Amino acid sequence: MSSTVGQVIRCRAAVAWEAGKPLVMEEVEVAPPQANEVRVKILFTSLCHTDVYFWEAKGQNPLFPRIYGHEAGGIVESVGEGVTDLKPGDHVLPVFTGECKECAHCKSEESNMCDLLRINTDRGVMLNDGKSRFSINGKPIYHFVGTSTFSEYTVIHVGCLAKINPLAPLDKVCVLSCGISTGLGATLNVAKPAKGSTVAVFGLGAVGLAAAEGARIAGASRIIGVDLNSNRFEEAKKFGATEFVNPKDYNKPIQEVIAEMTNGGVDRSVECTGHIDAMISAFECVHDGWGVAVLVGVPHKDAVFKTHPMNLLNERTLKGTFFGNYKPRSDLPSVVEKYMSKVQRVVSTFNFPLSIRSRVMALVMTKIMH
Amino acid sequence: MSSTVGQVIRCRAAVAWEAGKPLVMEEVEVAPPQANEVRVKILFTSLCHTDVYFWEAKGQNPLFPRIYGHEAGGIVESVGEGVTDLKPGDHVLPVFTGECKECAHCKSEESNMCDLLRINTDRGVMLNDGKSRFSINGKPIYHFVGTSTFSEYTVIHVGCLAKINPLAPLDKVCVLSCGISTGLGATLNVAKPAKGSTVAVFGLGAVGLAAAEGARIAGASRIIGVDLNSNRFEEAKKFGATEFVNPKDYNKPIQEVIAEMTNGGVDRSVECTGHIDAMISAFECVHDGWGVAVLVGVPHKDAVFKTHPMNLLNERTLKGTFFGNYKPRSDLPSVVEKYMSKVQRVVSTFNFPLSIRSRVMALVMTKIMH
Repeated sequence: MSSTVGQVIRCRAAVAWEAGKPLVMEEVEVAPPQANEVRVKILFTSLCHTDVYFWEAKGQNPLFPRIYGHEAGGIVESVGEGVTDLKPGDHVLPVFTGECKECAHCKSEESNMCDLLRINTDRGVMLNDGKSRFSINGKPIYHFVGTSTFSEYTVIHVGCLAKINPLAPLDKVCVLSCGISTGLGATLNVAKPAKGSTVAVFGLGAVGLAAAEGARIAGASRIIGVDLNSNRFEEAKKFGATEFVNPKDYNKPIQEVIAEMTNGGVDRSVECTGHIDAMISAFECVHDGWGVAVLVGVPHKDAVFKTHPMNLLNERTLKGTFFGNYKPRSDLPSVVEKYMSKVQRVVSTFNFPLSIRSRVMALVMTKIMH
Repeated sequence: MSSTVGQVIRCRAAVAWEAGKPLVMEEVEVAPPQANEVRVKILFTSLCHTDVYFWEAKGQNPLFPRIYGHEAGGIVESVGEGVTDLKPGDHVLPVFTGECKECAHCKSEESNMCDLLRINTDRGVMLNDGKSRFSINGKPIYHFVGTSTFSEYTVIHVGCLAKINPLAPLDKVCVLSCGISTGLGATLNVAKPAKGSTVAVFGLGAVGLAAAEGARIAGASRIIGVDLNSNRFEEAKKFGATEFVNPKDYNKPIQEVIAEMTNGGVDRSVECTGHIDAMISAFECVHDGWGVAVLVGVPHKDAVFKTHPMNLLNERTLKGTFFGNYKPRSDLPSVVEKYMSKVQRVVSTFNFPLSIRSRVMALVMTKIMH
C-alpha cells in the first residue's frame, strides 16, 4: 500500500485565480478521498475548449480559484470508503459526467444523463460533504466538473471514473474521456448512418473529426465536411471526409447547397460547432422522409433554435446528444478497446486530435509558466 | 362489365364555387379514367378539417370551382390503362397522398412521402394530362388532393387507392383514410411508447383520440390528454386517456405542469392541434435523456418553431410525421384488418370519431342544401 494513503498529498497544479488570467503552477494540498471518492494520480491531461470557456467565464458563473481540466488519464492512488469497483493501481479515465448506476437515467438504455453525477459546471465542491479536496495553506481551491485534472493528484467521485485496459497508452487514450468519444458516439450511437448513406459533419475540430471517423466506420459513402476554415479540409480527409463545403464560398444558405449536392439532402448530419446558425443548417440539410440531424456542440446560453415546423412534419428527426450517448463507466472501456484493437483505422482518429490538443495544451502551459 | 365503362358518368357532387361560400349540389360529368387512373363510386365520405381549411382559402392558393373531400370509402367502377392492382368491384379507400412504389421514398422503409404522389393541395388536375376529369357543361371543375370524394363518382390515381377487405363496412372504415390513421400511426409507428410508459396527447379531436388509443394499444400506463376544451375530457377516457390538463387552468407553461406531474416529463408526446405554442409545449414536456415528441398537426404557414437548443442537447428527440408514417397502399389494408378483428378495443376508436365527423358532415350538407 502506498505510503500516501490516508494522508494529504502535496503536489503541483495549474490554478486559475481569476477569469481569463494565466493559470499559475502552485503547490496544492490534496485531501484523501472520502466515501465513494477516489484519489487519482494524473499522468496525462489534454485541453478541451470547455476548459477555456469556463476559464474565460464570459456569462457563466465565475467560480475562482479553480483547477480546470477534464480530459485525462491516470492511475488510482487510493480509494475512499465504499469504493469496491476500483483499487490502487487501476488505470482510469476521469469523465466530466458520471454514472451512478442507480438512477432512472442510468437504468434507461437510452440515456447517459445520470441524475446524481450529470455534468454540473456551477458546482466546485465534492458531493459527499459539499467541500473541496484542494487547498493552498488552508484556503480551498474549487473543483471543475468533478475532475480537475490540471493537477498531479485529484479526487474524483467513483461514478466519474472509467476503469480501462492497463495496457492502453494513457498519453493517447486520455482524449477519449471527452472530445473524441463525444464525436464518435454522436455518429455511431445516435445518428447511426446506414452503410452507403450520406453524412454531413458541421465543424472539423477534434469532435467533428471523430464524428466523421464514426461515419466512415459505419460505412457512409459520402461524408461532407462543413467548416468556415478551409485549411482544415486536407487533414479531415484522413478522418473519412470525402468532400467539403465552406459556407463563405456561397451566397445562399448552406442547407440549400448541401441539398443540391445530395439530391434533396443528406441522410444524417452531425453538428459539432455549437453555433446556432450551424445547428439550424445541420437540421434543415437532412433529407425529408428519413433524415436525422444530431446536435453535439454546446450553444450560447441565449441561443434560440428556430425552424419552420413543416421541416419537421416532412418526417425529419432532430436529436441532441451528450458525450456521444456513452455511459462513462459502462461504455468507455470498450471505446478504449476499439483503439487498442486498431481496427477500422480508429487509431488515426485518436492520434490526430491528440496532436492538435497537445499543441494547444503546450501553448497554454507555456503561458502558465511565464 | 358495367355499362358505364369508357363513358362519361353524370352524377351529383358538392361543388365549392367560391372560397367560404356554401357548397352547391350540382350534376357533374365525370370522364373515364386515363392511364394509371381509377374511377371510383364513392359510397361514404366524411369531413376533415383540412377540407374546411382549403375551402376557406385564408392564405392558401384559392382554386375554384373545386370538389373537396378526401376521407371516404368506395368501390371501383372502372380502371384506366396500365392498372393491374385493382379491378371493378374492388373496395377501396382513397388517400390524399400516394405510393408509387418506385421512388426513393417508397423504397425507403422509413418514409411515406412519395415523390410522385405526395399530397399537393395546389394541384387541381390529374397528373396524366394536367387536366380535370370533372366538368359542368364543359367547364372544368378542379380536383382536391387527388381524391375529391364529395362526388358520387371520382377519378383517382391508382397510387392513391388502398384496396381493402370487401367485408369491411365502408361507412365505418372511411375515416381510416385520413384522421384516424394519422393519429394512430403517429403513436404506434413514430412515438412508439414502451409498455408502462407515460404519454401526453395534445388536442383531443379525432386525430388526438386516435393517438391516445394508439398509446393504450401500446400499453402506456398514463395517458395525459391536453386540450383547451374541458368538455372533451369525459369522452376521451373511452380512448385511453387517464388524466387531463387544460392549459387555461394554469398560469405557467403547460410543459412545466406536465413535468411536475410526471417527475421530469413524459416519455412520449404527440401533438395533434397544429398550434405552434402546443408544438413547443409538446416538445418541452418530454423527459430529458429519452423523451420523444412527435408533431402531427399542420401549422400556420408563418409559424416558427422555437426552443432553446439545450432542450435538444439534453437528449430529447423531436420528430414529425405525415399520415402516421403509413404507406397508403402497403399499410392501410392492415389498419382496416385491425378494425375488423376488433381486438384491443380499436373498434371504439373508430366509431367515435366517425360519429363526430358524421355530425359535422350532416351540418355542412344541411348548409349545402339551402
